[in-house]
Amino acid sequence: MKYCGECGNPVEQRVPQGDNRTRDICTVCEVIHYTNPRIVAGTIPVWKNQVLLCRRAIEPRYGYWTLPAGFMENAESTTEAAIRETWEEAMARVSVQGLYTMISVPHIDQVHLFFRAVLVDGTFGAGPESLETRLFTEADIPWDEISFPTVKRTLELYFEDRKQADYPLHVSDIRRPLKT
Amino acid sequence: MKYCGECGNPVEQRVPQGDNRTRDICTVCEVIHYTNPRIVAGTIPVWKNQVLLCRRAIEPRYGYWTLPAGFMENAESTTEAAIRETWEEAMARVSVQGLYTMISVPHIDQVHLFFRAVLVDGTFGAGPESLETRLFTEADIPWDEISFPTVKRTLELYFEDRKQADYPLHVSDIRRPLKT
Ligand SMILES: [Zn+2]
Ligand SMILES: [Zn+2]
Repeated sequence: MKYCGECGNPVEQRVPQGDNRTRDICTVCEVIHYTNPRIVAGTIPVWKNQVLLCRRAIEPRYGYWTLPAGFMENAESTTEAAIRETWEEAMARVSVQGLYTMISVPHIDQVHLFFRAVLVDGTFGAGPESLETRLFTEADIPWDEISFPTVKRTLELYFEDRKQADYPLHVSDIRRPLKT
Repeated sequence: MKYCGECGNPVEQRVPQGDNRTRDICTVCEVIHYTNPRIVAGTIPVWKNQVLLCRRAIEPRYGYWTLPAGFMENAESTTEAAIRETWEEAMARVSVQGLYTMISVPHIDQVHLFFRAVLVDGTFGAGPESLETRLFTEADIPWDEISFPTVKRTLELYFEDRKQADYPLHVSDIRRPLKT
């Protein structure tokens, strides 16, 4: 940020009084402009022992496979965001079962939330951000073409937990860009 | 937002191509300025059957009691944010046990995360944002002087679950300002 969103004058980077972090502060109106991590919400959409994945039609990771997920919007809940993203990217209606992974990604200021979910009627399609969508059995998952480390970790945990049919919440971090 | 943070020129509110929500878009450089919900992270700090609460030294809700919690910062994890806030507000070192409540508050664009935690050595104090901090037994909790609905709900769930010594994750929403 270079200019103040409130008055349009230049901001400077300094630590406000009583704070301990550098912030963007307006040189004229003195408003402090905070920035905070963003939430990415998505689902693991399941239908008859298969998981629905989307092949990305947008950068980054064009052409790679992902779970449906995207940035949570203002004025919605985490669950609503996950359901909306599943609809927009995979054209699938889901019933959400519970939060499954919460993965902080500090180097990009994001927190990724994946909910377990079941397709309501087994129908799906490709939204504008997807080249195609497809149901995969565990054996067919394209592990070398998964878009993001948080998606890969969530899928790995899911198939591991499925052996016991017990899906506890997994809270973890991914600390740096990982090769996938 | 009235001005573009990148170039300082006025923004306008309109729906970008391919989007379905109104955004702040710069009239000159055309940058789209997204805003997203913020995460508030905190703990339920427990010591010998008692819960540590902080009496707020800042607005909103000056003088009311709260669990230690605050806005998650960039470059940290959710757990780190909860531990940091507990240190800053209650001067208490905690060991985090697990995510306990995730409460979306859509009308103020926030998601509140509370982790169960245990004081490491039983010491605590009042940070700059607290008038005082105190350990409370369940019978002593000042229910009529709790700062925020998410804190009240988290405490209610905690004492209910404590009867069974079983603390599943609770995901819920609070849809409008509630009287406390
Ligand atoms: Zn300004
Ligand atoms: Zn601009």
